[in-house]
Amino acid sequence: MIKKLLIANRGEIAVRIIRACRELGIETVAVYSEADNDALHVQMADESFCIGPTASKDSYLNPTNIVSVAKLTGTDAIHPGYGFLAENADFAELCEECNVIFVGPSAEAINKMGTKDVARETMKEAGVPIVPGSTGIIKDEAEAVSIAGEIGYPVIIKATAGGGGKGIRIARTEEELINGIKITRQEAATAFGNPGVYLEKYIEDFRHVEIQVLADNYGNTIHLGERDCSIQRRLQKLLEETPSPALNEETREQMGAAAVKAAQAVNYSGAGTVEFIYDYNERKFYFMEMNTRIQVEHPVTEQVTGVDLIKEQIAVASGEKLGISQSEVTFNGWSIECRINAENPEKNFMPSAGQIKMYLPPGGFGVRVDSAAYPGYSIPPYYDSMIAKVITYGRTREEAIARMKRALSEFVIEGIHTTIPFHLRLLEHETFVSGAFNTKFLETYDVMGNQ
Amino acid sequence: MIKKLLIANRGEIAVRIIRACRELGIETVAVYSEADNDALHVQMADESFCIGPTASKDSYLNPTNIVSVAKLTGTDAIHPGYGFLAENADFAELCEECNVIFVGPSAEAINKMGTKDVARETMKEAGVPIVPGSTGIIKDEAEAVSIAGEIGYPVIIKATAGGGGKGIRIARTEEELINGIKITRQEAATAFGNPGVYLEKYIEDFRHVEIQVLADNYGNTIHLGERDCSIQRRLQKLLEETPSPALNEETREQMGAAAVKAAQAVNYSGAGTVEFIYDYNERKFYFMEMNTRIQVEHPVTEQVTGVDLIKEQIAVASGEKLGISQSEVTFNGWSIECRINAENPEKNFMPSAGQIKMYLPPGGFGVRVDSAAYPGYSIPPYYDSMIAKVITYGRTREEAIARMKRALSEFVIEGIHTTIPFHLRLLEHETFVSGAFNTKFLETYDVMGNQ
Repeated sequence: MIKKLLIANRGEIAVRIIRACRELGIETVAVYSEADNDALHVQMADESFCIGPTASKDSYLNPTNIVSVAKLTGTDAIHPGYGFLAENADFAELCEECNVIFVGPSAEAINKMGTKDVARETMKEAGVPIVPGSTGIIKDEAEAVSIAGEIGYPVIIKATAGGGGKGIRIARTEEELINGIKITRQEAATAFGNPGVYLEKYIEDFRHVEIQVLADNYGNTIHLGERDCSIQRRLQKLLEETPSPALNEETREQMGAAAVKAAQAVNYSGAGTVEFIYDYNERKFYFMEMNTRIQVEHPVTEQVTGVDLIKEQIAVASGEKLGISQSEVTFNGWSIECRINAENPEKNFMPSAGQIKMYLPPGGFGVRVDSAAYPGYSIPPYYDSMIAKVITYGRTREEAIARMKRALSEFVIEGIHTTIPFHLRLLEHETFVSGAFNTKFLETYDVMGNQ
Repeated sequence: MIKKLLIANRGEIAVRIIRACRELGIETVAVYSEADNDALHVQMADESFCIGPTASKDSYLNPTNIVSVAKLTGTDAIHPGYGFLAENADFAELCEECNVIFVGPSAEAINKMGTKDVARETMKEAGVPIVPGSTGIIKDEAEAVSIAGEIGYPVIIKATAGGGGKGIRIARTEEELINGIKITRQEAATAFGNPGVYLEKYIEDFRHVEIQVLADNYGNTIHLGERDCSIQRRLQKLLEETPSPALNEETREQMGAAAVKAAQAVNYSGAGTVEFIYDYNERKFYFMEMNTRIQVEHPVTEQVTGVDLIKEQIAVASGEKLGISQSEVTFNGWSIECRINAENPEKNFMPSAGQIKMYLPPGGFGVRVDSAAYPGYSIPPYYDSMIAKVITYGRTREEAIARMKRALSEFVIEGIHTTIPFHLRLLEHETFVSGAFNTKFLETYDVMGNQ
């Protein structure tokens, strides 16, 4: 049994985890950087400890300091949230060595899924569809050219250590491929400490559809349906919804079964997400990557299933069985999440840090807000720009959209710029409303400009 | 089609109605008294008009001023909320005369249910169980003594024009009955302008269980399950939940069917609530009264059914059919509502008006807040003391309770006293947690004192 849990994160996800712990009767320990002295998670936790200076590498990315606080406070478990150390296998191992439960899958599962070319091979063996491409890391440019010749252009060059939209490059010609390989290798060596890249056929028109999975240590692996995250700007998700407007029941079931297979192939434990490229023209899907952690967009799944994913993560980490079986999972209605960032959408999404003067989140039926903001809070400019997630629920997609527009229009955040005006325009856009869009939606339509 | 709607109310219910209208694309008109210049509903509505001085009788209870604003602004419909003019048949008639849609049932239905002895007789004829008692108004003390002799003491004396816990008195002896009749008649004449009283057998140990109904003008009448409102202080509800911990499936179905019958007996239209006395020892239920309006506690039903009751009210008033049939109504999980009042529970619930300095409502999964409060808002001392409703949802009662404790403990309201400490104690009380309590719970246990 976990009695005390440390949250190795900040912002809304730290608050989210503290809330789940409070409902479970688990004591919480917050850690924070010097810039986060006034952060909400610091105020809400039972105990709080400063773990270093402002720079993430000295605080939220400092495994030694975090584990030291855990040991000092007699903490049983560490929840890494998302980002920072959440997919760091070394950190998971360090926790284990120090007898602190890491709320997440094994270091081995993290490694297998984190090394993208290994993940591809593992999926191929498990019978999960993958995009045609190279087998493992590309040796040299000649091999790349040969593979691209087989699968056909355009191709996508991916750093095996990348993820979350970083370390990838598209090549439409042999020349672009040869140059792209060089540049991506160099970037990957610098950014991830691993220059390895691999090749995949580039599917032009696809939707990003992902499946939420849950697994315990007793052989139970279930899925909780899909999330459609096709609304992206520069590969960053901005709006997510479930169900996907593009999936039919047959594809949904096949994708769910494939995700369960993917998780089982790495003996997955806890909450994870299998991301798929969904080629809606061909009605085919391909494994993209697995995120071995809780995701930003997990609330939409919670809204339609009623299952608290953070509580399930903690239960599994405590050695309990899953609280729900596949046949007990039901899906009701529609849910949408808008990520509200402290950015000015009128000025090319320029970051907008500063003090929030007046703050009043929206309320009422079908509206959920996950945020670490409060009246008077000063947003530090050093971290992620996301300041709130607004999640709505409706019996239909139409109702969820109408409710989101209502919620965003009553959200009071004064003193900084936010992306609320962007979302309000997006939600009015007829292509978005129609449900027929792909990941290029925001490249195709200038939502903030002429529409 | 309703294009513009006036809200003849204030506080959280006015905000609730404005939210529904915004989701439906309906323009809103707020009305307010001089004391409500800074009220949230005034800020949120598309248009706002002052309709008179602070005293309710001169503003929120002033039919002429309200209907004048409606006509002036080209409003199609008036939503009365709850309280004030919501169950005033004359007001409903005035709206009709002025060609403004009254969002509620017909004046006739309001009258039949508002005159308690007529309601009793109507229910009796419709085959809805009623508590043994007098047929119609008591003529004189001799008749009362004779009826009490038949049904047995204790009996309850009720003013036919009363309701909401007002104009009632219990008599355990003939002497108490004779005196009680006199006093209740006098009080009722003063308070309601109608001295008529009737008698019922007084059931000592019962739960207050009510059924939400919805009806359209095409003969469709459905119910949306029950709410248990047994937690009351001086006949005022403080916490409500659905489902009721006391009902089994058989009784639930019977009660639902009886409520539908009750509504049909008065050609009911819109949203209404049939309240029952549930004698859990005998597993029998009796008609108590019907509230011909939306109720404070309607959100718990919305949480477990997904149905937006305000939207359904407006749809029915627009002449649409119900958006849902009985067989489509599903019940998922558990929901609890706590009414947060600006009162000091440590000082016998003394009202605590004043300015709210810091305000941050709780958020996250399964938490809904319906409120008209905001940072800096000054609560006027002239109206209802309820300043927020916190509604939680959980897969089980245990989860809904844990979530409520979490939500209330993070609710920041500085500058005034609130009943949050009372609710936190109530939610910890083992009798409440067990689910086995009746309407005398708060008389029996001093939740704020020794427990």
